Amino acid sequence: MATTTSPLKIAVIPGDGIGTEVMPYGVRCLEAAGKVFGIELSFETFDFASCDFYEKHGDMLPPDWKETLSGFDAIYFGAVGMPDRVPDDVSLWGSLLKFRREFDQYINLRPCRLLAGVKCPLAGRKPGDIDFWIVRENTEGEYSSIGGKIFEGTDRETVMQETVMTRTGVDRVLRYAFDLAQQRPRKKLTSATKSNGISITMPYWDARVREMAKGYPDVKVDKYHIDILTAHFVQHPDMFDVVVGSNLFGDILSDLGPACTGTIGIAPSGNINPDRAFPSLFEPVHGSAPDIAGRGVANPVGMIWAGQMLLQHFGFRDAADAVLGAIESVLARGDADVVTADMGGKGTTKSLGEAIEAEILAAK
Amino acid sequence: MATTTSPLKIAVIPGDGIGTEVMPYGVRCLEAAGKVFGIELSFETFDFASCDFYEKHGDMLPPDWKETLSGFDAIYFGAVGMPDRVPDDVSLWGSLLKFRREFDQYINLRPCRLLAGVKCPLAGRKPGDIDFWIVRENTEGEYSSIGGKIFEGTDRETVMQETVMTRTGVDRVLRYAFDLAQQRPRKKLTSATKSNGISITMPYWDARVREMAKGYPDVKVDKYHIDILTAHFVQHPDMFDVVVGSNLFGDILSDLGPACTGTIGIAPSGNINPDRAFPSLFEPVHGSAPDIAGRGVANPVGMIWAGQMLLQHFGFRDAADAVLGAIESVLARGDADVVTADMGGKGTTKSLGEAIEAEILAAK
Ligand SMILES: CC(C)[C@H](C(=O)O)[C@@H](O)C(=O)O
Ligand SMILES: CC(C)[C@H](C(=O)O)[C@@H](O)C(=O)O
Repeated sequence: MATTTSPLKIAVIPGDGIGTEVMPYGVRCLEAAGKVFGIELSFETFDFASCDFYEKHGDMLPPDWKETLSGFDAIYFGAVGMPDRVPDDVSLWGSLLKFRREFDQYINLRPCRLLAGVKCPLAGRKPGDIDFWIVRENTEGEYSSIGGKIFEGTDRETVMQETVMTRTGVDRVLRYAFDLAQQRPRKKLTSATKSNGISITMPYWDARVREMAKGYPDVKVDKYHIDILTAHFVQHPDMFDVVVGSNLFGDILSDLGPACTGTIGIAPSGNINPDRAFPSLFEPVHGSAPDIAGRGVANPVGMIWAGQMLLQHFGFRDAADAVLGAIESVLARGDADVVTADMGGKGTTKSLGEAIEAEILAAK
Repeated sequence: MATTTSPLKIAVIPGDGIGTEVMPYGVRCLEAAGKVFGIELSFETFDFASCDFYEKHGDMLPPDWKETLSGFDAIYFGAVGMPDRVPDDVSLWGSLLKFRREFDQYINLRPCRLLAGVKCPLAGRKPGDIDFWIVRENTEGEYSSIGGKIFEGTDRETVMQETVMTRTGVDRVLRYAFDLAQQRPRKKLTSATKSNGISITMPYWDARVREMAKGYPDVKVDKYHIDILTAHFVQHPDMFDVVVGSNLFGDILSDLGPACTGTIGIAPSGNINPDRAFPSLFEPVHGSAPDIAGRGVANPVGMIWAGQMLLQHFGFRDAADAVLGAIESVLARGDADVVTADMGGKGTTKSLGEAIEAEILAAK
C-alpha cells in the first residue's frame, strides 16, 4: 500500500501554544525522512484552527476549509486550545472534532509502547514489556451533539445528552481493530465495554463484537468493563495487543495507556479515514500546553512520532521505521543537554528536534 | 453523630460466589468490634440478590424486598453476579443497582490508600503517599435506562442511550464531596469532567461545580478531563484529596484508584443515603469472582473494610479505627501463612479473616 499521489501533499496546521513550537521540527524530520528514502513530500501551512484565527475571524475555520483541506493527502496537526481565551468546547468542536467528523476520520489510533530512556511510572517494567495499540471510534458514541436542558434555572433543571451508536459506525471500527490484531503476532483483541452499567448502548457494542469475531476465528477476543480495564492497564499492561473502544472509552484509554508507559507527553495519534475518501490527520496527543508555551522547551517527540504514523499510513514502512528508530535511539541515549525537562534533561525543543533529525539523516 | 437505633440492625446479603465466602468473616469482625466497643449490633441474613435465588424464583429479589430491607439501618452486601448463569445486566440491574436507586443511595464513597504490606504497582510510592477519597454520583448520569434501538437488524441500525443529570442529583453529590473535602486537612477537591468532548451534560456539571464552590471558599477546587485525570492517577496520585465524578467517571476512577494503590482486591465501597431516609449499603469493590469461588481462598479484607465503613458511617469512630488498624497491622505483618495468594501468601479466607478478628478483639 503506497501513496497514490506524488508528491504526497501535506497540510500543516500548527494551531496553538506549543503546537506552533514543535511543528517546525516535525516538518524537518519528515523532510529528512523524505530525503533519505526518496519520498516526495510537499507542505503547505495554514493559520486557521487556532485561537488567534478565532479572535480575528470569529470562527476557528474559514468558510472554505473543507474544500481547501480536501485537496491534501494528510493533515499534520499541532495542537488546539487556549482555554483562557476561547472555551475548549468552542475551539475543539470548531476545529479538531469537526475535522474528525466531517472528514469521517472514524479511526483514532494510538500506540502504547514502553521506550528505552523514558521513565515508566509502573514498577518493574522494562522496554519491550508493553507494546500495544489503542483503536478508538472517532466520530459518534458519547461525543454526540444531541441533547439539551429543560426547566433551566429551577430545581427541576434536567440536562440530557444522547450517546449514539450506529451499526455502520461500530462495525467499521471493529473491523479495523480486528484487521490490525490479525496482522500482529499475538493476534489478540480486547474490547472495552460497560454493558453491566450502561445497559443499552454497551450491550449493543458487545453484540457487534461477538458478531464481528465470527469472521476472525484466528483472533483471540476478550472484553473488560472499562472500570476494571483501567485497573488492568496499570496492573497488567503486558496483557494487551490491540484494544478497541468507543469514542469516550478510547479517549480515556489512550491517555491512560501512554501515561502507564511514561509517554503521555510524547505519544502520537492518527485520526484516520481508512477509505482515503478524505485526508487523515496526524497529531501529538499532548495539547497546546499554555503553561509552558512560548519558552521553546516543549518536547517535539509527539509531533515527530505523529509524522512517523503519517509515513506508516501511506505505506512508507522503511521511512517510518527509521523515524521511530531515530526517536528511540536519541531517547535511549538520554543526553541531558539534548532531551527536554520532561525527560529529565535540560535541552530544548530545538536540541531534541535536531538530534532526531540528524539521526534520521544518518539512517540507511 | 451516633446511631439512632440500638441495636443497629444490619441486613446481611452474601450474594454470589466469593461474596458468600468472605461474608462470615465480615460479620465476625463487626461482632468483634461491637463487643470491644460496646456497640449493639443485630444481623439478619437474606438469600436473595443472588443467582441461586434468581434461578429458583425468576427474579433477583422477592416482591416485598423494599419493605423488608427498609426495616434495617444498613445493608452489608457481599457480591452479585454469575455471568455464566445470569447475564450481568439482569443480575446487577435486578439487585445492586436497584438498591442504589430505590434506596436513593446517591453517594458512592471509596477510599484510595496505600497500605503497608500491600504491593503497589507504581514505582517509588510508599505507605502514606496516597490517601484520598472518591465520591461518585450513584443514581443518575450515564447509568440511565432511557434509550433504545431503531432500524433493528438493518444497516441503518441505531442505538441510543440518554445521559441524564438533574440539578438535584448533581448538587447533592457535589455538596457531599465539598463537605468531605472541608473536613480534611488539605481541603482539596478535584472534579472529573469531559466538557471538551461531552459537550452538553459535562459543561453543566462544571457549571454546578463552579456554583457550589462559591459556598466553600476554603476548599481548593480543580478539575481535569477524565482522560488526563486517569493519567494523573498513575503519574501523580499524591495530588488528590477528594475526587468527585459522575456515575460513570466515578465508577472508572474508583477501580483505577485502588488499582494504583494495589488494593483493588481489598477496597471497600459505601453506597450511602446521607439523609438516612433509607438504609445505606456497604460492600467490597471486588465482585463475585467466579474463577476462584468455592475454594476458600478469597481475600476477606474488602468485606471487612466495608464493615469498617459501616461503623464509620454511624459515627462509631473508635470501633472503625480499630478495624482499619487491625487490617493494616495484619497486612503489614504479611505473614505468608496468613495472607491470601493475591497478597503473596498461601493463607485462606479463614486464616486472614481470623487474624484480623483476633487483632480487633485485642484492641483497646
Ligand atoms: C457491577 C457494576 C454495575 C458496578 C457499577 O458499575 O456501578 C460496579 O462496577 C461498581 O462499581 O459497583
Ligand atoms: C481535546 C479533546 C476534545 C480530545 C478528545 O476528547 O477527543 C482529546 O482528548 C483527544 O483525545 O484527542
